[in-house]
Amino acid sequence: MNPLLKELRHNPILWLLALVPVTLLAAKLAPTAHTVLFALSVLAIVPLASLLSHATESVAEKTGDAVGGLLNATLGNLTELIIATAALQAGQYTLVKGSVAGAIVTNTLFMLGLSFLVGGLKHHVQEYNRTSARLHAGLLLLATIALVSPSAIAITELATGAIIQKLSLGLAVLLILAYGFGLLFSLKTHRQFFAGVEQAEAGEPAWPIGLALGTLAVVTVLVALVSEIFVESVQEAAELFGMSPAFVGFVVVALVGGAAEMTVALSAARKNRLDLSVGIALGSASQIALFVGPVLVLLSYVIGPTPMDLQFWPGAVLMIFLATFVAVFITSSGRSAWFIGALLVLVYAVFAMTLYLLPPRA
Amino acid sequence: MNPLLKELRHNPILWLLALVPVTLLAAKLAPTAHTVLFALSVLAIVPLASLLSHATESVAEKTGDAVGGLLNATLGNLTELIIATAALQAGQYTLVKGSVAGAIVTNTLFMLGLSFLVGGLKHHVQEYNRTSARLHAGLLLLATIALVSPSAIAITELATGAIIQKLSLGLAVLLILAYGFGLLFSLKTHRQFFAGVEQAEAGEPAWPIGLALGTLAVVTVLVALVSEIFVESVQEAAELFGMSPAFVGFVVVALVGGAAEMTVALSAARKNRLDLSVGIALGSASQIALFVGPVLVLLSYVIGPTPMDLQFWPGAVLMIFLATFVAVFITSSGRSAWFIGALLVLVYAVFAMTLYLLPPRA
Amino acid sequence: MNPLLKELRHNPILWLLALVPVTLLAAKLAPTAHTVLFALSVLAIVPLASLLSHATESVAEKTGDAVGGLLNATLGNLTELIIATAALQAGQYTLVKGSVAGAIVTNTLFMLGLSFLVGGLKHHVQEYNRTSARLHAGLLLLATIALVSPSAIAITELATGAIIQKLSLGLAVLLILAYGFGLLFSLKTHRQFFAGVEQAEAGEPAWPIGLALGTLAVVTVLVALVSEIFVESVQEAAELFGMSPAFVGFVVVALVGGAAEMTVALSAARKNRLDLSVGIALGSASQIALFVGPVLVLLSYVIGPTPMDLQFWPGAVLMIFLATFVAVFITSSGRSAWFIGALLVLVYAVFAMTLYLLPPRA
Repeated sequence: MNPLLKELRHNPILWLLALVPVTLLAAKLAPTAHTVLFALSVLAIVPLASLLSHATESVAEKTGDAVGGLLNATLGNLTELIIATAALQAGQYTLVKGSVAGAIVTNTLFMLGLSFLVGGLKHHVQEYNRTSARLHAGLLLLATIALVSPSAIAITELATGAIIQKLSLGLAVLLILAYGFGLLFSLKTHRQFFAGVEQAEAGEPAWPIGLALGTLAVVTVLVALVSEIFVESVQEAAELFGMSPAFVGFVVVALVGGAAEMTVALSAARKNRLDLSVGIALGSASQIALFVGPVLVLLSYVIGPTPMDLQFWPGAVLMIFLATFVAVFITSSGRSAWFIGALLVLVYAVFAMTLYLLPPRA
Repeated sequence: MNPLLKELRHNPILWLLALVPVTLLAAKLAPTAHTVLFALSVLAIVPLASLLSHATESVAEKTGDAVGGLLNATLGNLTELIIATAALQAGQYTLVKGSVAGAIVTNTLFMLGLSFLVGGLKHHVQEYNRTSARLHAGLLLLATIALVSPSAIAITELATGAIIQKLSLGLAVLLILAYGFGLLFSLKTHRQFFAGVEQAEAGEPAWPIGLALGTLAVVTVLVALVSEIFVESVQEAAELFGMSPAFVGFVVVALVGGAAEMTVALSAARKNRLDLSVGIALGSASQIALFVGPVLVLLSYVIGPTPMDLQFWPGAVLMIFLATFVAVFITSSGRSAWFIGALLVLVYAVFAMTLYLLPPRA
Repeated sequence: MNPLLKELRHNPILWLLALVPVTLLAAKLAPTAHTVLFALSVLAIVPLASLLSHATESVAEKTGDAVGGLLNATLGNLTELIIATAALQAGQYTLVKGSVAGAIVTNTLFMLGLSFLVGGLKHHVQEYNRTSARLHAGLLLLATIALVSPSAIAITELATGAIIQKLSLGLAVLLILAYGFGLLFSLKTHRQFFAGVEQAEAGEPAWPIGLALGTLAVVTVLVALVSEIFVESVQEAAELFGMSPAFVGFVVVALVGGAAEMTVALSAARKNRLDLSVGIALGSASQIALFVGPVLVLLSYVIGPTPMDLQFWPGAVLMIFLATFVAVFITSSGRSAWFIGALLVLVYAVFAMTLYLLPPRA
């Protein structure tokens, strides 16, 4: 049986793929139907992200450990990166920064919380490996503090744009350096602490390398095309629903971009493999802070209308700090139950509600 | 022997009950002697709170597990709730919010610190159950972050009153929902983790159900009457001592309202049962955040002159965050010694001194 | 062989002692060569600090446990204290406060991070005593919160100078009280938890008491003389390099003043004795918060041109909070690897870069 067909039976979300041509067609025929295009593009990205994720893993598996690990780590948040790049090109920097902040908060509160909740509804008390969770949490804590502290300080010192831009550039370089060290650490010197996550993430059998590479290429192009439609339609559609660009980036883009990982994390939680859920949620958030964010700053010099800085608005700074502290504390116990998950999701809901009612002034 | 008489011999604080009629009489005869009325009403509330606490437990014990647990959980902070309701009716919202913030900080720093100090002076190093302490700490952390984050964000975004009010209402509903889930969790699905606290809190033998119900009814009315005198006298008396309404709510009301629980927590610490002290201190703080605070917001729509919001002043936000982080970290080790307790009390003293010298601008 | 000569062979840094007379001479001959004097005085303080540290330990060892422990604890940060005193006399309060904040952040991020990095490059995973690390971390957390919270609250309440000064004085008294309790705790009631650090810090054989006392006296005078030159030259030299007084205090003074302890901490980390490194880094930071900071406030009433307050600028408050939270979390796991150390150093670099580009407005 064709692996794509098998995949379709296995993963009902993929039926949404039918919306990809519909979205592309609709954008041609009715380029001003913003609300429809917005809804279509959101729904079309979800199955594409899922395919992208599986294709990446299949390629990673075939290319051997070192290159495969590198691919997996680098392309793990490819969907977020493509969407943010489309927004970058359009100069929608509030949306871009919102999606970076939102991806961190969504992974550490919503993905983790929903994993605990879903797992806890099936298992009374779930235990997981504390050592590995603490390692992931420590990396995440340091990554987000490095990412966000300059914003917090700049806010209090009322810094000018030129200094902020210089600071952001220096910060981006330092973060990418740290990301490089992180690859060395997780793929080479201390790979045994991270082995579990990669193996299990694959889950389903890998595709043949040709199919995987082809899918990777085609789907990347499709995600880019749909993301462009999404970014074009989002502003006016969002206004209709009373959503600010910051809210759309923070909640909608973060949920859409992370849908594929979320599926894997939740299914692992149900199977009482919380180590895996915690590793995916925290690892993905670290990667956003150390890689996706800084890469977008550097990209903005090439493809953006003006350079983008890494300054987040005050509410985003606070939410990132709090989400990280919470995730770090909660996962350091090595145990969970459904109510902890419910409370994590509640805190996420409070953040989303606050951001919906109180969008940043900028 | 009459149970009330036995109680009097057992619990010397109850002799202060004699001040209840004195206070009510004084308020009739000299309604402008604010300082005297303030001092009398503070002293009169303490023994009433102690009676209220014992009556609640006795009723809870007789009514069976489910209803009893519900009663215990709901009426555990009844004194705080009644005092705050009296202040709410008088429109003294700074006092109300101060007492909510103060109850959280007082429980997590002062009650916990004094328990560690008192226990540590008798026992060299005290060990307690980390699992249960971590669970309580996790709930507290999530509860306070949900309660306080919107305030922190609203401060930085200079939000208008109407939006804050809408946000507060939504937040109150979410928090009470979380409280409901919490009851389900602690009384039903995971009751074994919380069993210790309830049983031991009873301590003394329970009263007959008739006496307990009667006491509950009569004492509730008395607390309400005395609280009204307290709220009427507090503003002018406080000015005399150079105290702002925020300080009175934060320190005086929080200490008076929590006196009954504090007695139980300290006595448990002396008996080397720190699990119990930690459970009472953190559990009570969580309950204030998830139940008392939001209920007061909803009540303000019914009995207050105008709707009250849940926006705390910046210093209160910071103190709640820091007190929670500290309590969460300190209790996660499962060990304590006298100096840790002394430092917790010191941090509380620093907070109180800061608030005395620097009352909020509002 | 003369102990001083033996020391010179052992500790190559001491050859820098030759710069002490050079610095004193240069200050007489060319009092306006600020850049040269700045560089010379920085380099001259490093070996003096190392000698001071060894002399203190030798005296401590000879004078028996109680007095010795007291000496060790009080003189542990003598170099920082002398430099800050010189700056205090010159009325350079931004430099003084910067050095207090910087010493805490440098110890908790840079010294700890470099220890983890250096130790981790030699040992795959290092384990250390969690109980003792948690105790140190708990003390540090409470000490820094007590030190910094009033600043944070004062910032949000736009407090006037007179109230801040009153608050700072009260705070200084409370902190020194806590420091006294801390001595009682670590030298008397719970000395067994702290024994490791003191013993191992000595490392090299102790000097005879006469030599030690003589060295202590002479070197203290020399540090004072060189510090004066340093403080006089720093402002203009710093401007040349584009450094603000806050940056110089935060980074340069903190690194110079802590050089002696850093050597001991790093050498312990290489020997896989991370307990010791953690104890020195966190213990020294606690001592700055509870002793050096408040003593400088009290001293300012005697030797400063005007009383100094304990109000830190917003960025310093944030960096102290974050550095402490990070150190507290990272050390509570009882394990480390090189990448954790690298990330701690990275966060320090981000802080330093931010402070260099964004000096406080004050």
